[in-house]
Order: sequence, then C-alpha cells, then structure tokens
Amino acid sequence: MAKKVTKKTQSSLEDFQEDMLKIGNRLRELRKKAGFGAYDIFAYHIGMERSQYGRYERGQANFEIVSFLKILAGLQVSLKEFFAEGFN
Amino acid sequence: MAKKVTKKTQSSLEDFQEDMLKIGNRLRELRKKAGFGAYDIFAYHIGMERSQYGRYERGQANFEIVSFLKILAGLQVSLKEFFAEGFN
Repeated sequence: MAKKVTKKTQSSLEDFQEDMLKIGNRLRELRKKAGFGAYDIFAYHIGMERSQYGRYERGQANFEIVSFLKILAGLQVSLKEFFAEGFN
Repeated sequence: MAKKVTKKTQSSLEDFQEDMLKIGNRLRELRKKAGFGAYDIFAYHIGMERSQYGRYERGQANFEIVSFLKILAGLQVSLKEFFAEGFN
C-alpha cells in the first residue's frame, strides 16, 4: 500500500516528478500492450485498489518496491524490460 | 523511510527475493564504482541512516521509490542505467 502522501513526501515526489511521470507513462503503455484497455480492469486483475493503481499511472504515488514488482508480475514484464528502450 | 517489515511484507519480500538481491548487488557495485568503499560513508553522503541503507544493499528493505531515486541521484545514475546491462 503506498503511504499517505505527507507534505515531506509530496516535496520529494515533486523533486523526482520527471522520473515518476516516465514510470507512470510506461506502466500505462505496457498495461495496454498486455491487453488491459482500462486501468481499473488491470487493477482488479492484480488485486490492487483501482484508485491506488490510477495514482501509479499518473506518477503520483510514492509506491513501495514490492507493490511495483507485483504490478510488473501482472504485466509479465521484468525490471530490465520495464526500464529498457521503451522507458523514455 | 522503508516501512517496518511486517509479516505480510516479509512474505512479499520473499516472493521477489531474486529481484531484491539483484537490486542490492547492483547498488553495491555502483556505490563502489562511485568511489564509496564503505556503504556507511555513502549512506552519510546521501543523508540516509546507515543500517537502513545496509538493508537496501542486502535486498532486505521494501523501500519506497522516492528513497530509491534519492540513492540513484547520490550515485549519479539514471533508472535506465541502473537496470541496463549491469543489472543481472
């Protein structure tokens, strides 16, 4: 579960906004490629609350690595593939 | 700050142990490449508690993405470079 976004985390998220948006865009691209037209269907597929997953795709969640790895497992994509040439 | 590892997180960390160890090994490799012979010196450099950073390198921390991005900034390495050919 991503932590409640406190003021301090909010400023940190903003410090890394470019990377957070790139991660979100890449999630969206791979989610569609995996055949999940709507993000809430994918969220249901991996057993994640849909508004939480929506924040991931918008780059607005200070997520934990285990949650991220669960998402990649649901997309059947490795860490290496996720950050390879499509990540820009 | 990585969350206290609860039983539930512990089982999730174990589910993804291979990836967590690969991340830890890559951190160690890049930390040494950046000239920080000892992990506690690097932890001090990025303003992180040394035992916490030590858990990252051992693959034992369910860290948040913002903490990870702070570490990469301290190593002057991008997400793409981190997970590129050296990540195996």
